[in-house]
Amino acid sequence: IKNSKLLNNIDITFDMRTELQAYTFRGGDRYYNGVQFENGFTALGFAAKLHEQVSFRFRNRFNRGSDIQSLDQLGSNIELAYVDVKATPKLNILIGKTYAFYGGYEYEFSALEVLEYNDIQSNALAYVTGAGITHQSMPDHKFGFQILNSRTMLYDDIYGEEAAENIEEPIWPVAVVGNWRGNFFDGKFQTIYSLSYSNQVKNRGTYFFTLGNKYQNKNLTLMYDFNYSYEEVDTKGIVTSIFDNDSVAQNALYIENWLRAEYRFNSKFKGLLSLMTSNAYGKVANDRNRLRTSYGMVPTLYYSPIKNFDIRFFLAYIGRFYNYSNYAVEQFNAADYNRNEVRIGIIAPLLLL
Amino acid sequence: IKNSKLLNNIDITFDMRTELQAYTFRGGDRYYNGVQFENGFTALGFAAKLHEQVSFRFRNRFNRGSDIQSLDQLGSNIELAYVDVKATPKLNILIGKTYAFYGGYEYEFSALEVLEYNDIQSNALAYVTGAGITHQSMPDHKFGFQILNSRTMLYDDIYGEEAAENIEEPIWPVAVVGNWRGNFFDGKFQTIYSLSYSNQVKNRGTYFFTLGNKYQNKNLTLMYDFNYSYEEVDTKGIVTSIFDNDSVAQNALYIENWLRAEYRFNSKFKGLLSLMTSNAYGKVANDRNRLRTSYGMVPTLYYSPIKNFDIRFFLAYIGRFYNYSNYAVEQFNAADYNRNEVRIGIIAPLLLL
Amino acid sequence: IKNSKLLNNIDITFDMRTELQAYTFRGGDRYYNGVQFENGFTALGFAAKLHEQVSFRFRNRFNRGSDIQSLDQLGSNIELAYVDVKATPKLNILIGKTYAFYGGYEYEFSALEVLEYNDIQSNALAYVTGAGITHQSMPDHKFGFQILNSRTMLYDDIYGEEAAENIEEPIWPVAVVGNWRGNFFDGKFQTIYSLSYSNQVKNRGTYFFTLGNKYQNKNLTLMYDFNYSYEEVDTKGIVTSIFDNDSVAQNALYIENWLRAEYRFNSKFKGLLSLMTSNAYGKVANDRNRLRTSYGMVPTLYYSPIKNFDIRFFLAYIGRFYNYSNYAVEQFNAADYNRNEVRIGIIAPLLLL
Repeated sequence: IKNSKLLNNIDITFDMRTELQAYTFRGGDRYYNGVQFENGFTALGFAAKLHEQVSFRFRNRFNRGSDIQSLDQLGSNIELAYVDVKATPKLNILIGKTYAFYGGYEYEFSALEVLEYNDIQSNALAYVTGAGITHQSMPDHKFGFQILNSRTMLYDDIYGEEAAENIEEPIWPVAVVGNWRGNFFDGKFQTIYSLSYSNQVKNRGTYFFTLGNKYQNKNLTLMYDFNYSYEEVDTKGIVTSIFDNDSVAQNALYIENWLRAEYRFNSKFKGLLSLMTSNAYGKVANDRNRLRTSYGMVPTLYYSPIKNFDIRFFLAYIGRFYNYSNYAVEQFNAADYNRNEVRIGIIAPLLLL
Repeated sequence: IKNSKLLNNIDITFDMRTELQAYTFRGGDRYYNGVQFENGFTALGFAAKLHEQVSFRFRNRFNRGSDIQSLDQLGSNIELAYVDVKATPKLNILIGKTYAFYGGYEYEFSALEVLEYNDIQSNALAYVTGAGITHQSMPDHKFGFQILNSRTMLYDDIYGEEAAENIEEPIWPVAVVGNWRGNFFDGKFQTIYSLSYSNQVKNRGTYFFTLGNKYQNKNLTLMYDFNYSYEEVDTKGIVTSIFDNDSVAQNALYIENWLRAEYRFNSKFKGLLSLMTSNAYGKVANDRNRLRTSYGMVPTLYYSPIKNFDIRFFLAYIGRFYNYSNYAVEQFNAADYNRNEVRIGIIAPLLLL
Repeated sequence: IKNSKLLNNIDITFDMRTELQAYTFRGGDRYYNGVQFENGFTALGFAAKLHEQVSFRFRNRFNRGSDIQSLDQLGSNIELAYVDVKATPKLNILIGKTYAFYGGYEYEFSALEVLEYNDIQSNALAYVTGAGITHQSMPDHKFGFQILNSRTMLYDDIYGEEAAENIEEPIWPVAVVGNWRGNFFDGKFQTIYSLSYSNQVKNRGTYFFTLGNKYQNKNLTLMYDFNYSYEEVDTKGIVTSIFDNDSVAQNALYIENWLRAEYRFNSKFKGLLSLMTSNAYGKVANDRNRLRTSYGMVPTLYYSPIKNFDIRFFLAYIGRFYNYSNYAVEQFNAADYNRNEVRIGIIAPLLLL
């Protein structure tokens, strides 16, 4: 009896996505074709409810490096290692390495399920160490608040000599994140909105907000995210790489739209479509200029051959188009390019125990 | 009941071999004595049958580096991470990072059980990512076919500046492997034969075939492998290191014989003997020359003190003799050398759950 | 039934300590303030009793690097991977990567429970590969003896070019450790004493002994350790860093005192106090001189909010004071410094299965 109880309260999971990808890069000085098998996602997880009030989650993602990071003393492979203590029926405390409470459904998905991220999430740090609370204020409204390290590494270890002028490591590289999860019309419409400030260097940081919206009916799910990230010191690296002048860009701005539609044809087939745009702006001599707009589209087909068991074969096309503004072309010799890719593979979220 | 069923279908294993080794190197400019404890094999494994049609296997070998490889996005430590889907009663599909379907019994053994490999397997890549099928065509005959990445890293990441002339990364560094597993006389005689082509660089690759044969009666097991590997670009590095001219050798050829005999004296003692030879040939100006012949012998004694529980103490001698041809001595200043080693240790294939 | 038995014999553990630390460095050219969240301890463990006579323990500590070490072929992250075979009712044999049988209660604690180590343990190698025996000679007296590698890496890989004069790698970098665990007055008074010699380089090594004493009554536990380490080649690096002359110091001596008191106020609150001093001596031209004395104090408060479940919030102050002797100040330009730190965090030794 004791053992049965134990087993009901622990999950050992292994999630994997393996795929064959064929891709071409074209544009500017990019001219490259490639075909290869890739393990897009390979992770072992432990989750447990150890007590009425205490649960725990751990994930080791084997596609990420295990070098110990100088600030939080874990490798990037340890994505989750936190305890969740229920302090009151409505209030939970989360401590450890965990996902930041950012909003948006692109971020809400496990990377197992996302073949291609938009520009911000491609370059964002998703897992950091800190403490947070969630409060189920009303049955349909949950609020979260976190205090986190804003990085996993000391500034010097990230940027080395390439630091921008007047840059100093702050006493505490801290991020504060607040979010709201809303539920409307019996869950047919849902939201995850977040607002955050992340201190990168002394007196300069990133203001990031995201509005995630989801509509769901029987067979159709529609998600739309809006992301806005103003970065006094560029943390995504896109503006920095366009300026390409050996220092980190300042006052970068990224504005994004992301849409994902999922339609379940029947128990075996599901169709998905992701669409995305991202605008990157830079500031030179008090003048803000659009530098680049990127577009993405990812139509995908899932085929689940086995009844009542989640293992999916998938076929997807990924189109990514990077268009530079005239300003960027003229000032920084930027050149448009694109990537076209076809992927065929398997997605397996396996529950071992 | 549900839990019992679950537990019957998952195995958590921990395999370890720890040993004290005392060795000498002699010959040429090698003169070295050493004694040390070593963890020869340390691996955590998960295997599960999750559904009538779906099983899964994972192995993390802690003696291998965890740097993420540029082609398949896993470290060398993740040796196995694949799902096996039974498509029809006779046809299985395997997808993920897995062992290549090479033949031969030297390769068939887990590294837990092999104290010393012959030259090809010492330098071969055993675990790569891809997809394969096995077909149990007749009760006693099973065929396998795989398409795999031929490497885990991009060519540049392996060879860096030391690349040979006229070498170009191919669009797809792909390997195809076919094998046959035969069963004769009620399993008394068995075979694992394989044939493979592995594309290394544009238009050049490795042709590898291996013939593994096994005879088994009550207390005696005899295994004999023949290996032939013709490499348009040397992937084992032995010929390259003899030429020693800052570029990867081309048109290398390796031909090997390997024999292993195991005899069970009684429930506590088992004797083993491995014998091996390997010939390395190089091609200079259209002339193929034998460069080196290596010999190996590994007599081993197992002692299993506990009845019905597999934990083995072992004592082994490993002799390895590397003899260079006159041609290699004259042209490349090669010099014979040898290694003599004694090992005492423990082999423990532990089933935790 | 079989499964229940299995589950009773395996433990899967996850131990974590996450903390917010705020610290200042002052003194000499050190002037630094910092605040950060840190994962002080994050480890997954497996322990199993697989047979009446065989048990097993494994721990992967994710705060340690996973680079494969050249001598024992495991990374520093794999702290434990050993089997324990009960040869007779009183005699156990331990083989694999394991903790050395050093004495003292500072060393006896898991790093999960120690916020700050004294100088020797801060710089010592705790987990190495080898073989040992323990013998329960009398109900209250247990003796242990081990033969181990004295390092995990080849000498060159540790010191590189910075080696001292006349230094040569020995044939076997071996350590021998003996210890005694005593139990007096029904466990009210306990001891762990050890004596060890560790060969570092040819003909030179470290003589280390430690006397650990523990007094325990209902709510109070008192521990006192005395450590003495004479190092013909400095392995702790403190004397080497004071000399700072590009070679490893010889004939270093470290002498330490360490005291820890724990008092349980009630089921929810526990108070702790650690006090420590460490003296470092160097030898120059046959003259032994005291170079540095360090002091440490760590008052800590534990709060365990949940009845019968071990999860602790803690608040601690850590004061560390490094005072150099006049000799060190005059000869080597050393300067006193100190670190003051406050930590607030959580300690969670979780039993998953």
